[in-house]
Amino acid sequence: MRLERRKKGSAIIVYRLPWTWKCSKLLMKGIHAGLNAVAAVLAIISLVAVFDFHNGKNIPNMYSLHSWVGLIAVILYMLQLLLGVSVFLLPLAPLSLRALLMPIHVYSGLLIFGTVIATALMGVTEKLIFSVKNPAYNTLPPEGVFTNTLGLLILVFGALIFWIVTRPQWKRPKEPNSILLQPNGGAPEGVDGPTAVHFGNMDKSDSELNSEAAARKRNIALDETGQRSTM
Amino acid sequence: MRLERRKKGSAIIVYRLPWTWKCSKLLMKGIHAGLNAVAAVLAIISLVAVFDFHNGKNIPNMYSLHSWVGLIAVILYMLQLLLGVSVFLLPLAPLSLRALLMPIHVYSGLLIFGTVIATALMGVTEKLIFSVKNPAYNTLPPEGVFTNTLGLLILVFGALIFWIVTRPQWKRPKEPNSILLQPNGGAPEGVDGPTAVHFGNMDKSDSELNSEAAARKRNIALDETGQRSTM
Repeated sequence: MRLERRKKGSAIIVYRLPWTWKCSKLLMKGIHAGLNAVAAVLAIISLVAVFDFHNGKNIPNMYSLHSWVGLIAVILYMLQLLLGVSVFLLPLAPLSLRALLMPIHVYSGLLIFGTVIATALMGVTEKLIFSVKNPAYNTLPPEGVFTNTLGLLILVFGALIFWIVTRPQWKRPKEPNSILLQPNGGAPEGVDGPTAVHFGNMDKSDSELNSEAAARKRNIALDETGQRSTM
Repeated sequence: MRLERRKKGSAIIVYRLPWTWKCSKLLMKGIHAGLNAVAAVLAIISLVAVFDFHNGKNIPNMYSLHSWVGLIAVILYMLQLLLGVSVFLLPLAPLSLRALLMPIHVYSGLLIFGTVIATALMGVTEKLIFSVKNPAYNTLPPEGVFTNTLGLLILVFGALIFWIVTRPQWKRPKEPNSILLQPNGGAPEGVDGPTAVHFGNMDKSDSELNSEAAARKRNIALDETGQRSTM
């Protein structure tokens, strides 16, 4: 599950690497979907391995909170992947549908990622209790300290991804040829004056989580200012 | 810990209740700080109870990943509360410092909340393994199903708070008498044209996580549009 988590983390922040901003949006979306697809395959392989391991050792399946939350996360992840590819990658869905679903896609992507972190921490907790026996886990032997530290590092990894993905200055700039639309697909541009929300072509990714104004401002001010609003 | 978690959740979304938008910002900040202070007191009471329980039953303290992550979360929470009160509630800190620290305050508040959810799920996992014995937890007796369901509900609670706090249309409108500042405390208003980031008086709360433009747009369009960009 560790590789899968890392792939998921990289897939989330793929639009946030400034050196990729010169690459085409379609390429980046392909990489985003590709990394998530690899993570999904790894998740399925891990699940098969877990069930095989349980069956081989006569351990019941699907009784723990870890297994419930983990299976829900994997199912939601598959749905997210299917929905993401069919709505945002394939050139089939209308822009209004993309605009409607993008905030949900961003929210559920981050929620699933957070849930996977929580599942990993529950898994580590279970494994420590079940497997650290001589001396017992509650005497905190070296393998306890080591594995607790692994748990902390998983948490720090989640915190870093969450930091990167919520910084407006790392948001991929809008496409120069972006089409302007209302978020509710209604009135034409201009009725709300300069504060109207602009959706780029297939490019509303994570605007829900970021300051649109700050993102556009960065395009102008990135090289001019020495200071940044966040460290 | 349950009451504490609920208080923390309410404290996070306190600015997001449209019926409170007519209340003064200072009152709402007082309520935000007050609810968090109550949660902090409950957290300390819970910690004392846990150590007392362990000592009374000769169970070692602070060996589990749950305890490590939980203690870190409580310490960060106290720091967050101290920093929040001294920078954002008391009228001492200059606006530039508030603007600099607000994105960090919002990020760390949500991160601590997520960490508390993960800690709770690890705690539930531990308790189920240690206490559900006859019949064993892995046969999934009714108390296992009940407590796993409690764990799922904790997760759903976290997901709802995260949804509410990331919707731009539930963001508290800027104060009408807001002072306009650059995020890096630099140039005066106007140099970036209409896309400059506006900080209200003590009012940059969570602009990092939301579309500034969408929030301002909502003030104009809330009652006019039948549709909303998100369900």
